[in-house]
Amino acid sequence: MEETRFMLAEKEMPTHWYNILPDLPEPLPPMRHPVTQEPCPVDMPLPPPLFPDAINRQEFGADRWVEIPDEVQAIYRTWRPTPLQRAHRLEAALDTPARIYYKYEGTSQAGSHKPNTAVAQAYYCKKEGVSRLATETGAGQWGSALSMGCAFFGLECKVYMVKASYYQKPYRRNLMETWGATIVPSPSPDTEVGRSILKDDPECSGSLGIAISEAIEDAFAHDDTKYSIGSVANHVLLHQTIIGEETRRQMELADAYPDVIVGNVGGGSNFAGQFLPWVKDKMNGKKPDMQIICVEPEACPTMTKGPYAWDYGDSAGLAPILKMHTLGHGFIPAPVHAGGLRYHGMAPIICHLYRLGFVEARAVHQTATFEAGVRFARTEGIISAPESCHGIKVGIDEALQCREAGEAKTILIAHSGHGHFDLAAYDEYLSGRLQDYEYPKEAVIAALADLPGVE
Amino acid sequence: MEETRFMLAEKEMPTHWYNILPDLPEPLPPMRHPVTQEPCPVDMPLPPPLFPDAINRQEFGADRWVEIPDEVQAIYRTWRPTPLQRAHRLEAALDTPARIYYKYEGTSQAGSHKPNTAVAQAYYCKKEGVSRLATETGAGQWGSALSMGCAFFGLECKVYMVKASYYQKPYRRNLMETWGATIVPSPSPDTEVGRSILKDDPECSGSLGIAISEAIEDAFAHDDTKYSIGSVANHVLLHQTIIGEETRRQMELADAYPDVIVGNVGGGSNFAGQFLPWVKDKMNGKKPDMQIICVEPEACPTMTKGPYAWDYGDSAGLAPILKMHTLGHGFIPAPVHAGGLRYHGMAPIICHLYRLGFVEARAVHQTATFEAGVRFARTEGIISAPESCHGIKVGIDEALQCREAGEAKTILIAHSGHGHFDLAAYDEYLSGRLQDYEYPKEAVIAALADLPGVE
Repeated sequence: MEETRFMLAEKEMPTHWYNILPDLPEPLPPMRHPVTQEPCPVDMPLPPPLFPDAINRQEFGADRWVEIPDEVQAIYRTWRPTPLQRAHRLEAALDTPARIYYKYEGTSQAGSHKPNTAVAQAYYCKKEGVSRLATETGAGQWGSALSMGCAFFGLECKVYMVKASYYQKPYRRNLMETWGATIVPSPSPDTEVGRSILKDDPECSGSLGIAISEAIEDAFAHDDTKYSIGSVANHVLLHQTIIGEETRRQMELADAYPDVIVGNVGGGSNFAGQFLPWVKDKMNGKKPDMQIICVEPEACPTMTKGPYAWDYGDSAGLAPILKMHTLGHGFIPAPVHAGGLRYHGMAPIICHLYRLGFVEARAVHQTATFEAGVRFARTEGIISAPESCHGIKVGIDEALQCREAGEAKTILIAHSGHGHFDLAAYDEYLSGRLQDYEYPKEAVIAALADLPGVE
Repeated sequence: MEETRFMLAEKEMPTHWYNILPDLPEPLPPMRHPVTQEPCPVDMPLPPPLFPDAINRQEFGADRWVEIPDEVQAIYRTWRPTPLQRAHRLEAALDTPARIYYKYEGTSQAGSHKPNTAVAQAYYCKKEGVSRLATETGAGQWGSALSMGCAFFGLECKVYMVKASYYQKPYRRNLMETWGATIVPSPSPDTEVGRSILKDDPECSGSLGIAISEAIEDAFAHDDTKYSIGSVANHVLLHQTIIGEETRRQMELADAYPDVIVGNVGGGSNFAGQFLPWVKDKMNGKKPDMQIICVEPEACPTMTKGPYAWDYGDSAGLAPILKMHTLGHGFIPAPVHAGGLRYHGMAPIICHLYRLGFVEARAVHQTATFEAGVRFARTEGIISAPESCHGIKVGIDEALQCREAGEAKTILIAHSGHGHFDLAAYDEYLSGRLQDYEYPKEAVIAALADLPGVE
């Protein structure tokens, strides 16, 4: 019987995160302060006092390897290592000579890769005497992970949840409450920002931009509180490298090495967590022909259509200004089901590597991603998150191309999580009601006119 | 750092299911035919033609070890081995000297232990040329697992889903449809039974008994179709022993041996799957003082309150007559959230071992189980199914008793699955709206008056 599942024993587990910053052939541009627009110093890249010191030090850290604190490793082991699987059944269904592997983050208690950084951030806050965290959440994936992270360290957690989602996705809310978090629909009466919006428009259904502003205001307003972010930032990508570090060891067990690595990108933290530990082999010439493919929605094609420019990390202009591919911080993408991919920008590290030619990008329509997701469900069993279906779609495309070319490439899919809270989307697809959205060129042009104008 | 997670490599995986029948100190009474009430022959214990031959042979098989077919092992490896975890964080929260382990079946693609038998049953059907399976489902856990099993082998799957659940739990239905199954609300116009009920009562919201009758009629009416059952039967418990066989190897890695094994019982297949590979150590004197505790709801206290008697396996009286603890096949339990524990009877193997004194039973109220479930979520992270919360509740009780007594017992919890589709129940608990149900003595007395009367 051919091997299917590659697991690590605890003693084989990675003990360090991989920091790519010192290995970059050109340095990553520092962030700019949202108000002064000046470059932030490397030792304090994130405007204080939002983040704990340890996170500030990690954001532009110089060490290639960052030790994972024992307390974080101990919690990782409540769900890690996550499985690396050979997709024998999908390969057979595609009749491809390609070997397809997937690294599956959906077995975490919160159902995605997000706890990898949530647990680390909660730990550093606890260690520095913080007793409370504030954050925003859209569809609820990040809010869930941070609620769980806070539960592990006995921290209070306040989640500003976009009001439309708060009422549309009560189960996500219940999940966070089960972990002990306090959830409010945003805009809320709990902040100045929220009160002022509600005064003008009591029925306002909210946006991620508003929720971020409320969470940041909350952290500023409470001495015991820090703010926490779930993607994009360098420290978040750093924490996510546990995924790729595990995968490298698991691929060794499988006696395999990837020719193609593919995964979905929204803010980019799951896919970067997988590919950063591999891209160095491309940079140092060990595997120069390795393809690393970022997959994004046609409805929010940041990398394939957006310029590489300075823009705010958030819609409201409160977060640092980042050099990244962007569709404009005011751009509001169509309501595709992959809520985690509806972000106007992209992690600066990914954009930097894209510009340097180490990664490529493709945009796909959501109907095609659900078709791939159903194929995956009926062969490998897993019901994938709509976000993850994007990577699966292009993984399948690559495998079919191998069939055409008669090439036995090794394809690695970075699978970010399960879709147990997204079944209404599958229902739409299966019943033929699912709609695709073209790239809204005019809206992007309008949004790009509003960039902060940093040179 | 103390070890937390005990994983098996593929080469360490069990290759055989454990059949306890030849090891029983007294033989298990054979089933009785539902119409003739005569004992069924050992080589054809399940009335043909509902089941494939291989399943019929396994039901009262004489071999202690049954080889798991390669095709089934290959599919098990898409999610197995499931993790065995040391609950360090729960132990600390309880301040107990007890060592708590849990074997977690929630990482299967369907979210529970059910696929262990669904995949095996689909395989045997496929091998014998069957192209279609029919089954019933209440809350949807079993229907989901069989839908996935059928997807793996390219079989059609027809699921009769209790109409009330069909409309209350659309996500469960979407899940089954994603795996390619056809779902109809039961009673349905697709069978004689359904049509006749709908004629009298077009608004009938259905029951598991009606759904079973429809699925059985469907299998009788179609030459290409077999019926499939998700618990209670001996062959189902046999397939589930993969759980305990894995756990034995994992506990060896942990250098631990359980003093107490605890788990929830509805039909009993998850818990029996865990404890059957251990109970032989109790029977052969290797570990005579091991406690094996079956936990059931106060609202459906089959083992703790029901007599050991002959009764139909299903509500409609179409299934074989079994010697078991029962509340009467006409008994309808209160609508507790642990839908999988709302069964009037109990697996005959478990009842036999209970009567022989090898296992014990306890009944608990649902509010206490959700309290335990929330405690578990906030320490170990996992959101447990309401069914699984029953085992967790008594596991915690045992650990607290260890604290009182200063005893460092090793407690093993058989955790049957996640509660991602049960968050409305958590919400009821957290908001104080959850209600407990006392044992409905009068209803049971009435139901017990209607036993088939086999001596």
